[in-house]
Amino acid sequence: MSIEDSFAALCVSGSNDALSVKSLVFKPKTPKTATPIPIVVVALQTTNTPSPIIASASNTKEPRLARDELFQSIFKVEKAQDFHLGNLQNIENEFVVLLDSNLNAVDEKAVLQLTSDKFISKGKLLEYLNQFKPVEVDFSKAPEPTTAKKSGKKPSASSNKTSNTSTLDDAKLIGITVDKAKDFPGWYQQILTKGEMLDYYDVSGCYILRPGSYFIWEQIQHWFDAKIKSLGVQNAYFPMFVSSRVLEREKDHIEGFAPEVAWVTKAGSSELEEPIAIRPTSETVMYPYYAKWIQSYRDLPLKLNQWNSVVRWEFKHPQPFLRTREFLWQEGHTAHLTSEEAQEEVLQILDFYEGIYNELLAVPVVKGKKTEHEKFAGGVFTTTCEGYIPQTGRGIQGATSHFLGQNFSKMFNFSVENPLGSEHPKIFAYQNSWGLSTRVIGVMVMIHSDNKGLVVPPRVSQYQAVIVPVGITSKTSDENRAKINKTAQHIESRLIKAGIRATGDYRDNYNPGWKFANWELKGVPLRLEFGPKDLSEGQVTVVKRNDSKRMTVKLDELEARIPEILEDIHEELFVAAKQKFDSHRVIVDEWKDFVHALNQKNVILSPWCGVEECEEDIKNSSAQKDDGEEFEQDEKSPSMGAKSLCIPFDQPELKPNQKCVKCHRKAVNYCMFGRSY
Amino acid sequence: MSIEDSFAALCVSGSNDALSVKSLVFKPKTPKTATPIPIVVVALQTTNTPSPIIASASNTKEPRLARDELFQSIFKVEKAQDFHLGNLQNIENEFVVLLDSNLNAVDEKAVLQLTSDKFISKGKLLEYLNQFKPVEVDFSKAPEPTTAKKSGKKPSASSNKTSNTSTLDDAKLIGITVDKAKDFPGWYQQILTKGEMLDYYDVSGCYILRPGSYFIWEQIQHWFDAKIKSLGVQNAYFPMFVSSRVLEREKDHIEGFAPEVAWVTKAGSSELEEPIAIRPTSETVMYPYYAKWIQSYRDLPLKLNQWNSVVRWEFKHPQPFLRTREFLWQEGHTAHLTSEEAQEEVLQILDFYEGIYNELLAVPVVKGKKTEHEKFAGGVFTTTCEGYIPQTGRGIQGATSHFLGQNFSKMFNFSVENPLGSEHPKIFAYQNSWGLSTRVIGVMVMIHSDNKGLVVPPRVSQYQAVIVPVGITSKTSDENRAKINKTAQHIESRLIKAGIRATGDYRDNYNPGWKFANWELKGVPLRLEFGPKDLSEGQVTVVKRNDSKRMTVKLDELEARIPEILEDIHEELFVAAKQKFDSHRVIVDEWKDFVHALNQKNVILSPWCGVEECEEDIKNSSAQKDDGEEFEQDEKSPSMGAKSLCIPFDQPELKPNQKCVKCHRKAVNYCMFGRSY
Repeated sequence: MSIEDSFAALCVSGSNDALSVKSLVFKPKTPKTATPIPIVVVALQTTNTPSPIIASASNTKEPRLARDELFQSIFKVEKAQDFHLGNLQNIENEFVVLLDSNLNAVDEKAVLQLTSDKFISKGKLLEYLNQFKPVEVDFSKAPEPTTAKKSGKKPSASSNKTSNTSTLDDAKLIGITVDKAKDFPGWYQQILTKGEMLDYYDVSGCYILRPGSYFIWEQIQHWFDAKIKSLGVQNAYFPMFVSSRVLEREKDHIEGFAPEVAWVTKAGSSELEEPIAIRPTSETVMYPYYAKWIQSYRDLPLKLNQWNSVVRWEFKHPQPFLRTREFLWQEGHTAHLTSEEAQEEVLQILDFYEGIYNELLAVPVVKGKKTEHEKFAGGVFTTTCEGYIPQTGRGIQGATSHFLGQNFSKMFNFSVENPLGSEHPKIFAYQNSWGLSTRVIGVMVMIHSDNKGLVVPPRVSQYQAVIVPVGITSKTSDENRAKINKTAQHIESRLIKAGIRATGDYRDNYNPGWKFANWELKGVPLRLEFGPKDLSEGQVTVVKRNDSKRMTVKLDELEARIPEILEDIHEELFVAAKQKFDSHRVIVDEWKDFVHALNQKNVILSPWCGVEECEEDIKNSSAQKDDGEEFEQDEKSPSMGAKSLCIPFDQPELKPNQKCVKCHRKAVNYCMFGRSY
Repeated sequence: MSIEDSFAALCVSGSNDALSVKSLVFKPKTPKTATPIPIVVVALQTTNTPSPIIASASNTKEPRLARDELFQSIFKVEKAQDFHLGNLQNIENEFVVLLDSNLNAVDEKAVLQLTSDKFISKGKLLEYLNQFKPVEVDFSKAPEPTTAKKSGKKPSASSNKTSNTSTLDDAKLIGITVDKAKDFPGWYQQILTKGEMLDYYDVSGCYILRPGSYFIWEQIQHWFDAKIKSLGVQNAYFPMFVSSRVLEREKDHIEGFAPEVAWVTKAGSSELEEPIAIRPTSETVMYPYYAKWIQSYRDLPLKLNQWNSVVRWEFKHPQPFLRTREFLWQEGHTAHLTSEEAQEEVLQILDFYEGIYNELLAVPVVKGKKTEHEKFAGGVFTTTCEGYIPQTGRGIQGATSHFLGQNFSKMFNFSVENPLGSEHPKIFAYQNSWGLSTRVIGVMVMIHSDNKGLVVPPRVSQYQAVIVPVGITSKTSDENRAKINKTAQHIESRLIKAGIRATGDYRDNYNPGWKFANWELKGVPLRLEFGPKDLSEGQVTVVKRNDSKRMTVKLDELEARIPEILEDIHEELFVAAKQKFDSHRVIVDEWKDFVHALNQKNVILSPWCGVEECEEDIKNSSAQKDDGEEFEQDEKSPSMGAKSLCIPFDQPELKPNQKCVKCHRKAVNYCMFGRSY
């Protein structure tokens, strides 16, 4: 009997009443030279299994969900998804099994579901697991809010002092347990989930946008919607389904999307006559109707936009916001009588996208044009806003605005009579399409947030200020206690009246220190502490999330000062991010300096010949070139080469007869290269 | 060789370059006793084939897309979708073939695509069709806007007079060609497409929401979003995909949706390991995460809402807005600590839904509770807003707000410690869900619109007023012409400044009469005509869309009067609709009067015992009971019985010992019954 079979033999057939059990594999932080000892957590699906508890139960450091490499090297399965408890048999390496104590409450004979097709009785499961000497863990003894209380800290005494100096260690109880500088992907995952911005979902590559992030998206929608409506764009909604015939009509275009298209083939229990695709983008969904609606040049321009979700079933490693199988975006599709008018709009929209980054998210971007190789398939040219993630030194495409020329209008046959008269040739419409997705939220998070949690720029933050009463001790008189709470609430309502998104945290079961950490985790830009001293001085103590700076504001200046401080925070976040981007965008004229600069986490401006083969050559030649520099490898893409990010509109001056950085052709302009997302 | 095969033999194998050809079958209006002569239109996919042209080319009246019955009786195929040109062979009945003259431009050898798997060269197709003596038709000679000009009408002379008396005949040139009273489904289709509110889409059951209707949806979103946020509801976004394991977790619930669930089984060219459903609603998508997030009673209430689209692959006849396979809606999902708090919210939300109907759409509804049989599967009770469509005499469910009790929280195991202390039993959360969809737009259109086109209530109309310069003739001096146009534009900008959604129609290639008809078609509530007389009198002539009443408004009263008139229109629309609903909602105590009243296009309030079998009995006994009354049968549901619509909150007083209208049990309350959508 094979290993597989012997485990399978234990399993019984399915039942709808089965309780789901998850088995998760974690890898602790281990010196590079040592072999990691994996931790296998077996728990009820509904049990939360926080890393700190796993760490303490297994006596390891910073356990994180294991990657495919570990599954391959230790459990001999290709991917995490392929792993099941049967794989634990006959493993040479050491491993630790942690068993959820909640399973105690489950009846011995209850059927547990391990995977979609593996079921087992609880008794059999324990019998099987006992051979691995599992450690029983009570995951409900998680570092609960009350832990701070239990730890005996005096909230009132410490609250005014410790907040300024809180470190990663302090935050550990409820906060982020990985360091942004040391484990960026692990930090990113924690920051999003603990900051309650997003949650992981049980369909791989899909994520839940919780109110904290959806609110940001709503602010972007309001801002951008008003801008495009001022250009005469109207919103509409086209179906999410598209027939294969229509989808595949524009060949260049579909070639780019075909491998990622999700297909509906069944409804209820009926097979569909032909499979129907879910839109990866809506060019081919919309343009047959543009052809129908545009009957005269007077029907031009036609400018429609939709706010919707699209599906691209990527098989690469998914990342919240950055690479997800379903994502929210807007897609604008416009048709114009002249090429000039269309191209003007392409740049107007790109400016709006830059506005979203600069004005709302406090993120700097570089505007430019994509190379032929990187442009939108089926279009004439693509313009882009490119961002930069300092920790990884990688560029990230922020939003794109495409000039499609007449490619689609010819394919879909929407032409109008020439306004000059019917003796002149018919005119095929000139088109644009442009899109910005929830990816922007991921970029924003990566750039501003820190080891205490999210840092959300004030213009998009769901709450801009949180009021926390402080300094109330057992010695505080009832009268003063009431006064403090009442005034704090009064401050809150004054701020709300003044148009500030304020909230107050008056919960009596948490101490101020815990509240501070909790709101820092969520990224609220301003904390207003109000205690006995503030009461007597007629002031409120204000702490900025971005730099922890404290100041006092007189209560009678509240409505004037708080908005100013919020604006300061926006400005400071933007300037800090811009300095990082500017100092890591370097000009490199000679190839010998290129890879070195790249490995210093820079994006690079180099003179370039504009030839596609050379672009490919740069990418290949800059891959796998560690060349001895100290260079923290990104595990996801250890050997990634530099792609062309864009040809910036803002160009350094080319020297006369400047050669291409890579080949011996003449350079035609500076191109921005970099590792990228 | 069978018929099928001989046609198939003509067909060649597929090509990506194939031009698509559609074959549509129309049924002309025919006396009931006569056999209809179908019209088969063979045209390029991109050719628009308006009914008026088909009518004139085939010399028939009001041709409309044929229904399945005709395909069955004449072409011996089950459904319209099964029909193809091969079916024309060996048909006993007469039929007419119309051939798109655009095919002339196509090369003889070009490959044409007839269906997803039938391709034929143009030469072969014509050879085949020639046996049926096709009539060539130039569909581009459609009743174009300019027709009004060509017809020689003097725009200036007629514009001030004819608008008041325009009839269905007048409108035919560009407008609606079917009578709301005589062919309601045909009228509904025309009104939506010609009013540019919606377009038909090439995936059956899916429709395009054009800006005119999407704007209405946006107004609803803004209004409702502000209301629910005032209750503390936050917006979020959950994935559209759901695994079968999760979807099927709540049995009662899924039973209702299972036959309509669309399944994704393939991505790119890979089969998925297990099929993934597209959400038909999000209870089972969201609640596993509610279980995760709700860890303490302090996490309650949790109130989330999402604006999204859901998919229910219905196999019944689709209808724009009313029954579509994908539709936009909002779905709110809240969890509360107490049953009372939850139930209070259920009614608050229902009031908001009533507000959308009354305050925005000027549509009256009756609030009430669904019977056990009609409630939301898996919930405890369902409350509803029920509307009424006068033309068909049918009720229509407007929006529902459900109290789910603890059914789902027990299933998904989200419970919290009792706030009274851990010695008290744990509390499973009490939940609600509530939803309102784009269906509301369909109800609004059916109720207010008329034979001139859409009538859109002013609070949701994309444009509230359109300014049209009039009375400019060849004799008008250049100076006056300029003055009129300039003042009209000035009126427009003054209105916009005053917060009114105004637009001006200054196109010089259309005469005022054509413009009037065009804006009437789109349902703009107010038309402002500005001509020489208005100029000299310092006034503007105002025409109300809903009743064609004319009045003048002094220019210096513009900002004050126009909003008042818009409010009047809202009120008038609501009152008119309410009168119709009120006069067709009749109390029937005795069964002998029930079916008669039903056939008079009423919904019926009857004393009822509350027993489910009796409800079923009422439905069956009221079906197929024409009983000699004059009663225009609805072809879609000729024999539909009366369903229970709701038990209205506003109850007539029951007489002592009042019996149920149908059985001999005692009545427990009045229930509203009716044919329904």
